[in-house]
Order: sequence, then structure tokens, then C-alpha cells
Amino acid sequence: MGAYQPLLGFRDFYPKNQKILNFLCQTVRKTATSFGFEEYSSPVLEPLELFTAKSGDEIVDQLFNFVDKGGRAVALRPEMTPSVVRMIGANYSAVKKPIKWFNIAENFRYERPQKGRLRAFYQFNFDIFGEDSCYADAEIISLIISIMRNLKLQDFCVRISDRELWVAFLRATGIAEDDMIPILSIIDKSERENPEKTRNSLLKLCPEYAERLYTQILNLKTVHSIDDLNEFLVNNRLKDSTEIQERVRKFQKLLSVLDDFKALDSVVIDFSIVRGLAYYTGFVFEVFDRELSSRALAGGGRYDTLAEKLGYQHIPAVGAAIGDVTLVDFLSKKGLLPNTERGLDCFVIFEETCRSFAFQVTNFLRNNGFSVDFSMHELSFDKQFKSAIDRNARFAVICGEQEKVRKEIKLKDLITREEIFLPLDKLVDRLHVGEAR
Amino acid sequence: MGAYQPLLGFRDFYPKNQKILNFLCQTVRKTATSFGFEEYSSPVLEPLELFTAKSGDEIVDQLFNFVDKGGRAVALRPEMTPSVVRMIGANYSAVKKPIKWFNIAENFRYERPQKGRLRAFYQFNFDIFGEDSCYADAEIISLIISIMRNLKLQDFCVRISDRELWVAFLRATGIAEDDMIPILSIIDKSERENPEKTRNSLLKLCPEYAERLYTQILNLKTVHSIDDLNEFLVNNRLKDSTEIQERVRKFQKLLSVLDDFKALDSVVIDFSIVRGLAYYTGFVFEVFDRELSSRALAGGGRYDTLAEKLGYQHIPAVGAAIGDVTLVDFLSKKGLLPNTERGLDCFVIFEETCRSFAFQVTNFLRNNGFSVDFSMHELSFDKQFKSAIDRNARFAVICGEQEKVRKEIKLKDLITREEIFLPLDKLVDRLHVGEAR
Repeated sequence: MGAYQPLLGFRDFYPKNQKILNFLCQTVRKTATSFGFEEYSSPVLEPLELFTAKSGDEIVDQLFNFVDKGGRAVALRPEMTPSVVRMIGANYSAVKKPIKWFNIAENFRYERPQKGRLRAFYQFNFDIFGEDSCYADAEIISLIISIMRNLKLQDFCVRISDRELWVAFLRATGIAEDDMIPILSIIDKSERENPEKTRNSLLKLCPEYAERLYTQILNLKTVHSIDDLNEFLVNNRLKDSTEIQERVRKFQKLLSVLDDFKALDSVVIDFSIVRGLAYYTGFVFEVFDRELSSRALAGGGRYDTLAEKLGYQHIPAVGAAIGDVTLVDFLSKKGLLPNTERGLDCFVIFEETCRSFAFQVTNFLRNNGFSVDFSMHELSFDKQFKSAIDRNARFAVICGEQEKVRKEIKLKDLITREEIFLPLDKLVDRLHVGEAR
Repeated sequence: MGAYQPLLGFRDFYPKNQKILNFLCQTVRKTATSFGFEEYSSPVLEPLELFTAKSGDEIVDQLFNFVDKGGRAVALRPEMTPSVVRMIGANYSAVKKPIKWFNIAENFRYERPQKGRLRAFYQFNFDIFGEDSCYADAEIISLIISIMRNLKLQDFCVRISDRELWVAFLRATGIAEDDMIPILSIIDKSERENPEKTRNSLLKLCPEYAERLYTQILNLKTVHSIDDLNEFLVNNRLKDSTEIQERVRKFQKLLSVLDDFKALDSVVIDFSIVRGLAYYTGFVFEVFDRELSSRALAGGGRYDTLAEKLGYQHIPAVGAAIGDVTLVDFLSKKGLLPNTERGLDCFVIFEETCRSFAFQVTNFLRNNGFSVDFSMHELSFDKQFKSAIDRNARFAVICGEQEKVRKEIKLKDLITREEIFLPLDKLVDRLHVGEAR
């Protein structure tokens, strides 16, 4: 046997798995289109500097990068955001706002493969450009929730937080601007780490504020509503900051829009979410399985400064991504994967003398959009029926001498075993009824 | 403005171009499924040796290849065939035959970009494994023809040839087995080259047969039917070879099956087609625009020995691929590209006091699969109508105080300017009627 294998962390999609992927893509396409989003795509291979400009040189360790035969430093994309900002940035002024785009793309990261994380994975990306107001944030969150619901998922929750509010808390506490990003990074990690480690990291970074910050972090983790939040502000004497008041009002507005969109049931305030990446600038969120908070199913947030960072004009932006690996695991756990067994609509069974007639029928049915097959070898009726069942066909379409003379076919329902004779022009309607069951 | 560009020979797909690509993918998926083919996919990055094993080390010059961080020699795939043979080879014995698979994939070649040829391009691939008979060849050819016809293309033709017959001619002429592949390669090039160059190449390779071969090649180029072929065989005293008789019968059978499938109109015998690659072993074909025989739209053939060459068991195989670049050029020339302007189904227009009601309506319509949007800013009715028209919406759905009280909406057809009041539960049916127009 041949010794070839896919690369470590890469997947072959045999038809059963491809059907699952296509089912996700169809649901995403349909839902995003209903929200007025348009699909785009971009090359899997990009100039390396597009990624280092956004994430710094450290990102290179996680990339599939190389120098091509023309001497260009290139990399397989690890995520869509730099590419979509490049596309939007190139002709932002010429386009009506807001721009609502979605994308289905494979991304590549040179990481150790583990449960829920591969080296090549699909992401569904959704972004709104050119809109400052929290309606854009609400649209993105509602869209993610609608996709989950259209997949029949219920036991998920969107944990929403606000980086701006975190920054305002830190500022009111007296933290220096330069320490903000490192502290947000400590908060991001705090959920997955030993509390002592978090405390030590804070002590190292800003000894004079560490204890107060540590208590605040613990307290904020218990805040799950606007009422909780106001109580926290009063208790921590943060209520008087105009900056904080402003962000709380915005948070309240976001939740009220989500309520209008009947999305509030799936949402919870959770300040332990800050998202690792440095470029988020406002509301951030992650979506989790309610029962098992393992790896996030989706995540996103506002990133109003990235376009400028990449050398384009100021472009307000909010986006989210869903990954295929954790999503399929979740659907599988809930028994919500589509039936990948579904086979042919029809298998055409014929006597050798009626081959032309049978092909005419096959052709007619295929042209009408049914999936149809037949045996390529001269087989007995019995063996042809066996093939029909092997191929999981819904109907057998029988073309024998008798049928050829009558200019009809015999349709056999392979589930009910019911048989009827039909002229070709009645067949399509009859099959559509069969489909609908 | 930012200085980032896609790499040379790579494409960004803005929504208009993405719509064209999606239209091709949908047509391919629908048609291939109607023929009983199942979709699969495989990684864009593969071990380098998978490609060198098939095509020799020379292929490396045309690859995007590199050594990854784990020291593996890897390459972006230049074509699907090695990957699909790997997938089939890995569990061929366990699967019912024939296996009918299709795939939509981006491939990558490090070549000089030119008209109709890019460094990254999509290919639609179709293969049947495990079937020796010419029904498999006919299925593949019929499928390609059906896809072209479903795209409303007519002025194309499938030029079919037979490598086995060419080999039989050469054998009967006395050519040594080792010279066959080089001669087929000369024939392949002869269509695009000066006749003198072809003659000289033959003189160099096999001086004693060169003149006779050259005349045969010229004569065979005028053969376009089985009658022509038989005449050629008589004239060249090739009629008595059993091997040749056998292949001619097979060719006749192939054409008769294509006739049963109503595909013969689009087919012509053409012995100038031999396909460059060494691994074809039977019928080969290419599809061209009838008016302008520039670059082929599609091509394929039988390759019964490749699986063994890659270290798997013997697997009869026949396949074809369509490229997106030449196909889109052809569709564009014929005015057959889809309308990429189509916009929203509905734009919801509302008074600020009716925001919740408007969002409820938006939600309802989106859940019913319509593409719906609204203004994220407080705007006058006039400005909202302008947005609706900018977004190319088919209908305006008006939610004002009057409508909120009546628990109805006002539907305005933005083409006919017709207005009606409707309760929500009547709206969906009314919009479906609008859709159908």
C-alpha cells in the first residue's frame, strides 16, 4: 500500500465529512445573506509583512512561511483580518457604508495539533466596516447567534465584555497607559490559570496596584448584569468617572438592541473575556458551549484602529469568526450533525435491450436536478436492485421492454416498496412529492 | 494609503467576483450531484514527494514548495490528481465501485502569469475510480458537457482522441516502445508549432520512421469521424491489426453511449489531442470554445496506471478538470455571467419610536430567509428610502406609528412603486411572489 499521508494537523475530507462542512457553509451563507452580508475571499498566500505589520515579528513562529522562487517572503494566512482590512482599505472611500462582508476560508497555523485545534482549519468570518454605533456590534453578535440557532444549537452562550470599560477601570485606578495592554493580557490568561499566578504576574508588573487590581478582577468576574455592574462601580468608587458612565450607557444600549433582536437570552455579561489580541478597542465577546466551557466556538469584537495601523485611513470595524473544528465537535455532541448517509434520488434499472431508453430517462431526470445513477455493467434485475440499495437510492426507476412499449417507466419506492407506472412527464412531480417526505 | 497588494498572479475576490465564482460552484455542485458524484476535498499543502512521485523532479520548478518548521519538504498542490489518488488508494478495497467523486479546489503553480493563466486558480475536478468500461469515460464527458450546457454555453466542442489508438498506430508502424512517450509529446506540441519543427523533432528522434510518421500525423488531423478513421486505416494498411480493430470498436462504443446521452452534438474526433502528461492511458479529450481555440476550457482522460505508480493497487481511473479562469473569460465573452448587481430583498424603513417593532419585523423576515437590512442611524424617511435604493433593495418595508398600531407593515415595491398594507403573516407569501418575478 502507498505510504502517503496528509501532513500532520491537515485533513482529508472524505464525502461524509465534506457533507458536514458543506452543511455548515450553507447555513452560514444563508444566514449571513439574510443579514445583508456579502461574500468575498482572498488568497491563502500573502506577503509575510501583512501579518507581521499587524501582529509583530513573534507571529512568524506560528506561520507556514517561506521565501518563494522570486525571493518574496510569503506566508499562508493564519487568519482573515489582515487580508480583509487590505481589501477594504484599498477602496474604502469609493464604497457606501456600512460595508457588511462575510467569508469562508481555510487558515493555517504552525502549532502543535491537539483536541479542537489543527494546523489547517476553516473559519467563517463576519465584519462590518464604517459603522461606529453599537448597532454594528449588535448585528455581528445577532448574526452569530442566528447561525447557532439555525444549526439548531441552544446550549451556547455569548459572553460579552468591554475592553474600553476595562481600560477606563484601569485608568481610574491609576494604572499607566503603557501597562494597560500587559494587564489586559494577564486578565485574559487569568481564567485558565491558578489565581496565585495571576496575583504574582500583577505584583511583578505594578506592585503598588496589584492587590487592589486582583480584588477588582475577582469582583468583576461576579458581574453578570447592568445592576451588578452599577453595584460594583459604587463599591469601588468608580461611579463618578464620565468615561465609565459613558461606556456603561453604551453597554446598556447594546443589550437593549440585542433584546429587540430577541438575542438577549443567549447573552451574558462576563468581564473575564478580554480577548488576547492587542488590537481590540471596544466590546469583545466569545461564544461557549454552556455545559462545557472548553475552547471557544466563536469570538470577536471591535477593532477601530487596525486599518490605520496597516497604513490605511481610519476605518471603524467590528467582526467575529467561528471555527469549524470546535463547532463540529459541539454539533456532534448534541447529535445535530446532518445525515451524511443520504444517497441517490433514483437508480435506473434496465434490460440490456432498453439501454437507450434507460439513458434517455437518466438524462431527463438529471436535467431536472435529481441525482441519478445506473449500473455500468450488464447485470440481472436482482443485482441492479442490489446496487440501488447499496447506493442508498430512494427510488428505483425501471425501464424494461414492457415499459419501453408503454412509453412509461415503473417507479418503485425503495422504502415503502410501492410500485406505479408513470409516463415521463408525470415522473418529476411524483419524485418531488417523494423528496418532501 | 496602505501599500499592501495581493501577490503576483493571486486574486482578491470582491463580492461581485465572488458571486461569479459561487455561481460556477453552484452549477458544478448541482450538475455533478445529479450525475451521482460526491464531493470531497484535501489539504492545499501536501508532502512534496506526492507530486515528484507522479511527475518527476522537474515539477518542482513549477511549485510553491518549501521546508516547513518541522523539516518536512512540502508544496502547495499544483493539481488535485495525486491527492485524490492518495485518498482513494488508502481505502479502495473497502468501498463499493465505481467511486464517483468531484471537488472544487484552488491550485497553485509558480509560472509566469499571462492571459488565462494565473498562479492561483480554481479547478473543478471529476473522477470515476474502479470502472474499466467506456461508460465511465462517457459519464465524465457527458458531465462536462452538461455543466457547460447548464451554464447556457453552446459554442464549445469536446475534442476526443485515443492515446491507446495512437500507441497502436505507432506500434504497427514499427516504433520502439521507449520512443512512444517522446513521440506523443511531439504530437501534442505539433498543434501549436511550425510543421517544420515537428518534422525536425521526429527526424531527430527516429530518422527511419520520421517521414512516414509526419504524413500520418497530417492525415490523422483530418480524421473527424469513424468513417474517416476507417478510410485512414485502409489507406495506411493498418486495418488488419487486432489491437487497432479493438480500439476502434471501443471508440465507436464510446460515441454510441455519448449519442444515447444526447452529448454527441458537442463532440468531435480529433487526433491532434494527446494531452501532454505521460500518465494518460486511453481516451483523452479537451474542451474548446468553437470560435476561438485559445486555451482549453477543460481536459481529461483515462489514467489506469497512476495509482500503481504511486504505490497503491491497480485502480482504473478516468477524470477531467475545468479551470475557472478560461471558463469565466468564455462566459463573459458570451454575455453569460450572472447578474452580480442583485441586492437586498427588503430594506426596513422606520420611525425612531417604532424601532423595536421594526427590528421585530427585520428579525422575522431574516428568519424566513430573506436578505434584509435597515439604517443604523436615525434618518428621515426620505434618506432611508435613498439607502434602500442604494442597497438595490427590491422592497421597502415601512414600519411607522400607523403600521405599529394596525399591527401591519406597508410594503412598497421599489420597481413598480406599488404600495400595500399587510399583516406580518401575509408578508412572506407576498415576498415570495415578488421573488419569482
